[in-house]
Amino acid sequence: MRRPLLASLLLLSASAQADEGMWMPSQLPDIAAQLRAAGFKGNPADLADLTKPPMSAVVKVGGATGAFVSQDGLVLTNHHVAFGVIQYNSKPDRDLIANGFIAADRAGELPASPDYRVLVTTGFDRITDTILANARGKQGRAYYDAIDAATKQAVAKCESDAGYRCSVANMDYGTDFYLIRQLELRDIRLVYAPPQAIGNYGDEIDNFVWPRHTGDFTLLRAYVGKDGKPADYSPDNVPYAPPAHLQVSTRNVKDGDFAMLAGYPGVTFRHRMASEFANQIEWQLPSRVALYDGLIGTIDAAAKPDANAKVAYASQVQSLKNNLKRAQGELDGLRRSDAIHVRQQDESAMLAWLGKQPDAAATRRDIDAAQAQLKNAMAMRDRDQLVGAIRAMTQVLRAALTVQRLAIERTKPDAERESGYQLRDETLIAGTLKQVQRRYSPTVEKAILADLLRQYLALPAAQHLPEFDQVFGTTQAQVTAKLDALYAGTKLGDEAVRTSLMQRESNVATDPDPMLVAAKALLPAYMRIEEESKQREGELLRLRPAYMRALIAYRKSQGRAVYPDANSTLRVSYGRISPMSPRDGIDYRPLTTVQGIVEKHTGKAPFDAPKPLLDAIAKGDFGTTADPVLKTQTVDLMTNLDTTGGNSGSPVLDADGKLIGLNFDSNWEAVSASWMFDPRYKRAIHVDMRYLRWLLAKVYPAPHLLKEMNLPSE
Amino acid sequence: MRRPLLASLLLLSASAQADEGMWMPSQLPDIAAQLRAAGFKGNPADLADLTKPPMSAVVKVGGATGAFVSQDGLVLTNHHVAFGVIQYNSKPDRDLIANGFIAADRAGELPASPDYRVLVTTGFDRITDTILANARGKQGRAYYDAIDAATKQAVAKCESDAGYRCSVANMDYGTDFYLIRQLELRDIRLVYAPPQAIGNYGDEIDNFVWPRHTGDFTLLRAYVGKDGKPADYSPDNVPYAPPAHLQVSTRNVKDGDFAMLAGYPGVTFRHRMASEFANQIEWQLPSRVALYDGLIGTIDAAAKPDANAKVAYASQVQSLKNNLKRAQGELDGLRRSDAIHVRQQDESAMLAWLGKQPDAAATRRDIDAAQAQLKNAMAMRDRDQLVGAIRAMTQVLRAALTVQRLAIERTKPDAERESGYQLRDETLIAGTLKQVQRRYSPTVEKAILADLLRQYLALPAAQHLPEFDQVFGTTQAQVTAKLDALYAGTKLGDEAVRTSLMQRESNVATDPDPMLVAAKALLPAYMRIEEESKQREGELLRLRPAYMRALIAYRKSQGRAVYPDANSTLRVSYGRISPMSPRDGIDYRPLTTVQGIVEKHTGKAPFDAPKPLLDAIAKGDFGTTADPVLKTQTVDLMTNLDTTGGNSGSPVLDADGKLIGLNFDSNWEAVSASWMFDPRYKRAIHVDMRYLRWLLAKVYPAPHLLKEMNLPSE
Repeated sequence: MRRPLLASLLLLSASAQADEGMWMPSQLPDIAAQLRAAGFKGNPADLADLTKPPMSAVVKVGGATGAFVSQDGLVLTNHHVAFGVIQYNSKPDRDLIANGFIAADRAGELPASPDYRVLVTTGFDRITDTILANARGKQGRAYYDAIDAATKQAVAKCESDAGYRCSVANMDYGTDFYLIRQLELRDIRLVYAPPQAIGNYGDEIDNFVWPRHTGDFTLLRAYVGKDGKPADYSPDNVPYAPPAHLQVSTRNVKDGDFAMLAGYPGVTFRHRMASEFANQIEWQLPSRVALYDGLIGTIDAAAKPDANAKVAYASQVQSLKNNLKRAQGELDGLRRSDAIHVRQQDESAMLAWLGKQPDAAATRRDIDAAQAQLKNAMAMRDRDQLVGAIRAMTQVLRAALTVQRLAIERTKPDAERESGYQLRDETLIAGTLKQVQRRYSPTVEKAILADLLRQYLALPAAQHLPEFDQVFGTTQAQVTAKLDALYAGTKLGDEAVRTSLMQRESNVATDPDPMLVAAKALLPAYMRIEEESKQREGELLRLRPAYMRALIAYRKSQGRAVYPDANSTLRVSYGRISPMSPRDGIDYRPLTTVQGIVEKHTGKAPFDAPKPLLDAIAKGDFGTTADPVLKTQTVDLMTNLDTTGGNSGSPVLDADGKLIGLNFDSNWEAVSASWMFDPRYKRAIHVDMRYLRWLLAKVYPAPHLLKEMNLPSE
Repeated sequence: MRRPLLASLLLLSASAQADEGMWMPSQLPDIAAQLRAAGFKGNPADLADLTKPPMSAVVKVGGATGAFVSQDGLVLTNHHVAFGVIQYNSKPDRDLIANGFIAADRAGELPASPDYRVLVTTGFDRITDTILANARGKQGRAYYDAIDAATKQAVAKCESDAGYRCSVANMDYGTDFYLIRQLELRDIRLVYAPPQAIGNYGDEIDNFVWPRHTGDFTLLRAYVGKDGKPADYSPDNVPYAPPAHLQVSTRNVKDGDFAMLAGYPGVTFRHRMASEFANQIEWQLPSRVALYDGLIGTIDAAAKPDANAKVAYASQVQSLKNNLKRAQGELDGLRRSDAIHVRQQDESAMLAWLGKQPDAAATRRDIDAAQAQLKNAMAMRDRDQLVGAIRAMTQVLRAALTVQRLAIERTKPDAERESGYQLRDETLIAGTLKQVQRRYSPTVEKAILADLLRQYLALPAAQHLPEFDQVFGTTQAQVTAKLDALYAGTKLGDEAVRTSLMQRESNVATDPDPMLVAAKALLPAYMRIEEESKQREGELLRLRPAYMRALIAYRKSQGRAVYPDANSTLRVSYGRISPMSPRDGIDYRPLTTVQGIVEKHTGKAPFDAPKPLLDAIAKGDFGTTADPVLKTQTVDLMTNLDTTGGNSGSPVLDADGKLIGLNFDSNWEAVSASWMFDPRYKRAIHVDMRYLRWLLAKVYPAPHLLKEMNLPSE
């Protein structure tokens, strides 16, 4: 096969281009020249403080992103982000999911479930020295624990101020730490939701698909107590007055226009080392595909003769299929982008540059030590994946491992227990043990274990674990006999037996049930692997900053800035409204129109466009929201903005900072973008604000909300 | 739902545009102005005689189209058209399907199977008066029979000249008749075939798909005896010297360029009456979809418990699924084109115009009579479809009906027997009876009949047939009991019993087997329906010419010509290299490139591009065949040329008459084009001749063939 050299060249030059990057707002003044060159008309310095307008209009909503769009606390986010709120307020005789919702006035706005939150960032301070003070000089797990303790202390201090939630963000893999302080608004109400057949038009079938025709938006409103402070729901509460809000644009939008997006991208791996890219592409993704593919076949075959077993495992099989598809998509994308080669070339160039710097030796020592840690982990990667799957893919064995671990953790003071086994976790554990009942068949679980242990037996001796060899044997015949005995003898398939193990009085450590005995024997192996992993993570936290600092210095020498990999903190991307060629011979236009809604409409979910929408399209009365060139109503927009999971609900702004779109998805070709931004394929999908305006003006009218957002009524 | 008025307007004006039409070559001088306006640089009069150059270069090959491309009888056609020839010459140790084939010299060219033919048209004469002489004044079946007899006589006279095959073509539904005389070349040899992974790259998955990346071509050579006359294969034969051959272009091809195609399109319905359009869209296609969908469910459910039954019906189910998909595609397309409305408006306008003509009354009388015939047929359409399916969808019942019918026909002289039941058909009938064994399960056949008879019972009384009521009963309970008795009692499931019924001595008319008794009772109903249908077809053959003449005169009054609906005679279409927007937000480019081959390549059939091809693409050495703008090698072309089934292998010419493409498929959106040409969606797919030239020059080299075709060697 040809190495796509053209792709490599495109990518190498692309990181210097305008379109890659999830920038911390504080970095924007550093890249002011390129931001202006791309078309931004404001002053980048005005965007630098995320606690001040306009950035303070961007908020965390239900784990994703949203933005204030009026001075009275109106929040725009995705229909799928607010879905829990819509569902919570739906009743058999008031199906807000199917019918949508328009609050006639503020009294009609419906409270969200009590745990729904809008978070307004009010502090973002670099506290690297505070966090690292006690860690410096330490290594491995001790380094990790020192940072953990300092983090908990900083958070506790910050949260002593009532009404705030605090957290510490780790930037550039341990290079810098920021204390984030967020006002926690907890009276959130539903104001406007389109019917699901608009807000989620196309559902799973259109997920990751362009061209898209979804009106994935909802309006909420944040309320506070009369004192202006966060409060639980009360009819006496008043709308929150946000520090800033965004103005929805009333202007046209077209191919090539500047666009900018602010939001909370979750996690990316763009600055991982070249060896990690190679590991991901040559081993992690292919081996995951093979593992899942094998398990799907194993479960299907084992469950086939038993209709109940088929039902019990349907959800696990579906989840394996989704994960397999996702892994395959990521693998295809990274291969298409020639990611190993591109990253390797970049890293080699950086190390060559580093070698010529005066103080290179210490940096290089840390980088080499980090590489050695990664190499150690890779030596055991097949084993670690298999023993992980043996726990994750089973029901009764996992339950036995959980209760044995809980028994150990319960001997410690609560604060010292392993996370996941603390007092507050016990309800969740009990729920998991109960749920086994609906997802378990001994025949299928034995088949899963036989499949995984067959692969385990084939591993080189150096990767074998004495505990596993002892419990399951070292030949296929022994494995078969041991599994037969284990599942014939255990009573843990019985829900009452299983849940009774959670009781304080039960003594699982000496229980003779063969599954509990096996779990007790296996547990030291799991805890040893966990400990090794924590030691390694601690070392990498200590060592990676050398790599990141070298990368930042190297890029700076080329006149380029480096954005930290995404970590759920507020970031800004910029680029433009952009078409795409997904494959030879095909071009995607960057704007979709209502014609596509009609084309996709079948009358059956998820393509069951509501009659009022179809009628309004047929009527063709698009007023001021019609696109002047296309002469029809647009629906969704595509840009080349750099996004990832967590960017749902991010506002998309034009060159003047006006709101033109609402981010809600990306394209399938971009599924590998968490590792590598390939400008040929990375696109983001947004609701065109003109579609929102048209729906509110003509289809499901809410003139009072248009007025509140300072928008024309038609 | 909105009526797509824009579509209607486009369509109404489109028939006056350049791009619709399968013209008889003799019509081209009449449309010379529009042909030249579209970009044709030659003299349309030079194309008018299909027995003279250059049209005489276009030939019938293996039931489709091909063209001579050298003076030594080299024929270019599709890989799929020549597939039988390639297969016939493949052996376990010489897999020409997988590996392709290049004859090193003429001695190495491989003979096709003895029944493979290339037909060169040498006569095309209007004989309307001869054919209609005895029909005039007759009606119904008598009219039909008179035409049939005159046709047989004309063909027999023409074929008295050895080496020729003759046929009579019915143009414009009985308006005109042409005698076609074709030289029948029967020593055809394989010269060059690419590997199947090029010639059929993408196979069923890419069938009807654009963008396409298939090199669907093969070169054959026609041989004749030393006397220059058609001959069976002999090593002494010599290459046929064709009356004309086409020159492959060496120039660039791009979006918007003029293109023209000649070939043998099979059948279209574009000039059917508005009521037939409505019948097709409102009843025929939806009821076919419902019928097939129901049968698929019925067969699946009935065969489910029995693995053998599942295998036996797999092919029938697959065929139902394909036909269902095709019907649904046609229905979707015709609805998208608003075909009922468009055709109705056009017909109304024509009838209004006709009403103002001096001699309208007689014409109108015939048109109304034809409409009445169609209306009669429609009154019984549900019944006719069901009783047709009762025969077509069963195995043993159909076998019984066939032998009972054969018994009746055998009492007549062979020449008077119904077509399909003549002496020459008996081998085929015997084969069908034998084949039942592998496709039959009594449980499934009972379920199919129960499903169809349930629908029959629900028909209004006026549509009931006494024979069916007698054999199957008139209530669901009776049907169930009768079917049980029928299938419990019959011995026709036994192959030996069934095939013995073909013997002359067997007396099926008095055989007590309940299935034979039932078939004998049902047969009069089938024969009555058949007779009614023939009466009606005869009347329509007599009456439709009035409609066609009115349409032609009406179009002429608008300055437009009318091409006859396709009937497997040579036609010419013209248009241009053309992109398409299949759906909102998507554009298809009209040229594909080798990049797409690499993108689609998975290593597994049908996307298993051969290594020499992938290596050549990677090397990028495209020489003179590279596209100067795209800077790479093109593969396939898309045009808006008017084509239908039968156009496979049609040569595509540029404005100077040079060969630029080889037609091999159309796009899925055009599946409804047999009824209506919608310029937005009708496209044809061709091999770009530059791809052929590159393959012959650089990938699977055949410099001697390039030289023979007067083409550069790289």
